[in-house]
Amino acid sequence: MNPMQLLVIGGVAGGLSFATRARRLNEEAEITVLERGPDISFANCGLPYHIGGEIPNRDSLTIQTPENLKEMFRLNVRINCNALQIDREKKRVLVVDRISNEQEWISYDRLMLAPGARPLMPDIPGVNDPAVFTLRNLQDMDRIIEMTRPGMRAVVVGGGYVGLELLEQLHKKGLRISLVQLHSHVLTYFDKRVIQPLQDELHVNGIETWFNNHFTAFNREGDVLKCQLATGDVLEADMVIFSIGVRPESDLAREAGLVLSEAGHIVVNEFMQTSDPDIYAAGDVVQTRERYFGQRVAVALAGPANRQGRVAADHIFLQSLAQPYPGSIGTSIVRLFGMVAAGTGWTEQALVESSRSYNTVTVHEHQHASYYPGAEMIMLKLIWEPETGIVLGAQATGRDGVDKRIDVLATAIIARMTIDDLCHLELAYAPPFGTARDIINIAGFAATNMRDGLVQLINYIPDDPAVQILDVRPAPIAKKAPLDGAIHIPYATLRKNLGKLDRNRPVIVICMLGRTSYFAARVLAQKGFHAVSLSGGLRGLGSTEKGGLYAPCSPCATC
Amino acid sequence: MNPMQLLVIGGVAGGLSFATRARRLNEEAEITVLERGPDISFANCGLPYHIGGEIPNRDSLTIQTPENLKEMFRLNVRINCNALQIDREKKRVLVVDRISNEQEWISYDRLMLAPGARPLMPDIPGVNDPAVFTLRNLQDMDRIIEMTRPGMRAVVVGGGYVGLELLEQLHKKGLRISLVQLHSHVLTYFDKRVIQPLQDELHVNGIETWFNNHFTAFNREGDVLKCQLATGDVLEADMVIFSIGVRPESDLAREAGLVLSEAGHIVVNEFMQTSDPDIYAAGDVVQTRERYFGQRVAVALAGPANRQGRVAADHIFLQSLAQPYPGSIGTSIVRLFGMVAAGTGWTEQALVESSRSYNTVTVHEHQHASYYPGAEMIMLKLIWEPETGIVLGAQATGRDGVDKRIDVLATAIIARMTIDDLCHLELAYAPPFGTARDIINIAGFAATNMRDGLVQLINYIPDDPAVQILDVRPAPIAKKAPLDGAIHIPYATLRKNLGKLDRNRPVIVICMLGRTSYFAARVLAQKGFHAVSLSGGLRGLGSTEKGGLYAPCSPCATC
Repeated sequence: MNPMQLLVIGGVAGGLSFATRARRLNEEAEITVLERGPDISFANCGLPYHIGGEIPNRDSLTIQTPENLKEMFRLNVRINCNALQIDREKKRVLVVDRISNEQEWISYDRLMLAPGARPLMPDIPGVNDPAVFTLRNLQDMDRIIEMTRPGMRAVVVGGGYVGLELLEQLHKKGLRISLVQLHSHVLTYFDKRVIQPLQDELHVNGIETWFNNHFTAFNREGDVLKCQLATGDVLEADMVIFSIGVRPESDLAREAGLVLSEAGHIVVNEFMQTSDPDIYAAGDVVQTRERYFGQRVAVALAGPANRQGRVAADHIFLQSLAQPYPGSIGTSIVRLFGMVAAGTGWTEQALVESSRSYNTVTVHEHQHASYYPGAEMIMLKLIWEPETGIVLGAQATGRDGVDKRIDVLATAIIARMTIDDLCHLELAYAPPFGTARDIINIAGFAATNMRDGLVQLINYIPDDPAVQILDVRPAPIAKKAPLDGAIHIPYATLRKNLGKLDRNRPVIVICMLGRTSYFAARVLAQKGFHAVSLSGGLRGLGSTEKGGLYAPCSPCATC
Repeated sequence: MNPMQLLVIGGVAGGLSFATRARRLNEEAEITVLERGPDISFANCGLPYHIGGEIPNRDSLTIQTPENLKEMFRLNVRINCNALQIDREKKRVLVVDRISNEQEWISYDRLMLAPGARPLMPDIPGVNDPAVFTLRNLQDMDRIIEMTRPGMRAVVVGGGYVGLELLEQLHKKGLRISLVQLHSHVLTYFDKRVIQPLQDELHVNGIETWFNNHFTAFNREGDVLKCQLATGDVLEADMVIFSIGVRPESDLAREAGLVLSEAGHIVVNEFMQTSDPDIYAAGDVVQTRERYFGQRVAVALAGPANRQGRVAADHIFLQSLAQPYPGSIGTSIVRLFGMVAAGTGWTEQALVESSRSYNTVTVHEHQHASYYPGAEMIMLKLIWEPETGIVLGAQATGRDGVDKRIDVLATAIIARMTIDDLCHLELAYAPPFGTARDIINIAGFAATNMRDGLVQLINYIPDDPAVQILDVRPAPIAKKAPLDGAIHIPYATLRKNLGKLDRNRPVIVICMLGRTSYFAARVLAQKGFHAVSLSGGLRGLGSTEKGGLYAPCSPCATC
């Protein structure tokens, strides 16, 4: 039998994990990898960090070379090589060498499509100006680095992961940064409140922000690019970088008649087979399934891409031993200056859009023992299915320990754990690493308290004269940032001051972090009041522009 | 109806979590907390860190005061108060005020026993010398601090969590430290290989170690304490601190006729009820169940104690809504200088002792993208049940990111996830936080590869002339730390050099971290060799005393 011919289009995450796994499973196969660019398997997630100098050595971003992959895995890697056409009938691909311009047909028994996705650019006047960039590969990165000088005015368009990373790194290089974002906040994938600390971080670091806005045109006037906003404002900039999302590189697949989604992603089954069973696809170009409800999603992240490539190779060579790709829950993380935001599973926003029922709590706790130096507050929002208690999603922000909590909750979501299970997760505790009751346990406690009817929660401060707003924060804090229209009774004196409240009107109890208000609500409920606690407290609820409502506070044991 | 009388013996983790939860569930109950010492709810896990000055402020260790607990939770806290006798028939406890020496009977409807455990001291001559210490409370801590001076010789006895924390902090204060340990390595709860990096850390930091040894007597000669070891050696010391384990404070329970375990722990059911249903117990004094196989265990840790107290309060006041305590998996963590060790679930050693079947792999990966500054290698040992693939235990060491991986795996164990599930955990990835294939995914890949017959693994280097030892490390590394008796063929040249190997004898393939040897074993297996890969490579396998075998190496992409 002739060795199997494997042809791989795309030599980064999905393509190379496919090719190397295929080699480990089959020593005889002929494996050819085509890469459009000059670099194979480069670290695309590291590009922003080299721009800012945080990753000082450019060479560290080029993980593999064709020579190295030949030696290690006997791969035939062809860089600067474009695939032009798939001939499914004859099972061959027309390729062109971008240097020599020579064309040839390469045959395959199995084809892997892992061409990735390209950054979106709006079709507006002036967008082709040489000072307008996107960031996809090392060459884009080099051009941006070459252009940047301290003091320059740069505009980052798009407040997603890459936009925030870019913005931070350009700021680090001494550029003056503006952020233009189509939505009302960065990371539109997140629920707004939980990323308020990131919004604050932009403010503290002097980033000029333009929310609910977008560009309509660019006009060059000498050295300056005049950037026209939809609101009529004009920004003057030396450079503009678009990071407003990506579009799957699926033209080749479309022309070959493979089934695509409406958004243009290649549709695959659980073994990454396209509508042609001899053609597989993986990475940013494909549409897979969400892991819980099973609806179709496209997740352009490195982790899924790597694992999808492996699944496809297993399906070809391990047959019945191959495990299907189980779908994605969209776990993601980003650092912005000192703050980290991470999320996994469903957001409240996405559940509302899908008309699914859910419950949610927001809790605060330090990442490690509060008495151990460097304690920092984490804000965690937990979302679950009311009927079953099964955890659907979680989002968190904080300066440290956020990645750990989201990874634990991603695991819990994949395992279909319930809010009861979270109460008794047994996580590692020593003062430098955690607390005896981890914030995840606390989220479980809060959720089960709500489920068991021990506390009623509300996620906003109602503007309703029929309710009483009770501020139970300690006097010094309440004095510093008073809450207009609230009755102030510090929790420690509440039992003695119940006479100050009207038993016939609901009481909305408020503190800074949502814990003391829960304690107070328990006292009130047992004394016959209709008490409702503000989930998660004031922190992150109002934004800084609301003045008195929200004041960033240092952690206080009594609040 | 009269308010319920709750009496709590012990005012730290289990006792106070019981009392405060009880108050939140019942505003009317009369709740009295008796604490033997002068401090309520102090941070006992923080004691070693104040000795070393890492937690500079002593006050931060006293989390609550009786006054504060009165205000917040209407608790009647009595410090310096000893319980002398339980009269189960009349449901009352005889207590003595240690300051006034006055005795009185206090009645209860429900009693909570949370007296904790006391440090063990061996019954050997001279052990009562004032320079011989244990560390349980703030007063012990103060005495140790008062005595310590830079340059002093201190001996820490016991290489468990507290022993290692103490040793590190005393070293930080400039003392010269010896460690005496009964076993062959520190953290006897861990499997030996995975904590080798901690053993190395002791060596690098100049800690004198006496393994497989213990003291038989102490003789004071003027200012010097002569400490007699079982091996005949004598250590001269200025102070000695024992941290060789704890003994449950269960005398009161025993005298009251409650059922105890052989080791003296109070036996409780899943709602923390003792053999007397009106008496509950929680924390270091109780025996609960291991969560997977259900055998009885005693886990003296703050996290379980806190959650047990809460379960007991729920059982009293929430009745059918109360969730049982699900048992423990023994998740734990310790930092020693720059190195962290953490574990969860079953160890190989414990499985061998219980005659249970298991499989294991050891893998290495960085905590975050290798090209991002500060990348550090983690060593992870994964243990699973061969019949089901269910994960039973995990242990890890490394400088960073160890807590996260063990917490994820603790969650996976509680959820009864399998090695297949680990392959597709979707964990948060950005260069500062993880890798596109997390070490946990890699452990899943390695385990399923083994299960699917793709690779045979071995955990040691056999001393057997019938096998060939094949060293596939790159030439510079193999030259620096040669492997005696091995055939050296760098992996990159293996395919061209198969003729150097004997096809009729098994090949044990070896590299530094266990990854390249797996690649090589796949090549060999497909070429008809009987190839076996050394799981986890050489790192941590031999100890430093074996010289050439083990050389601590910086991470290398090709190994």
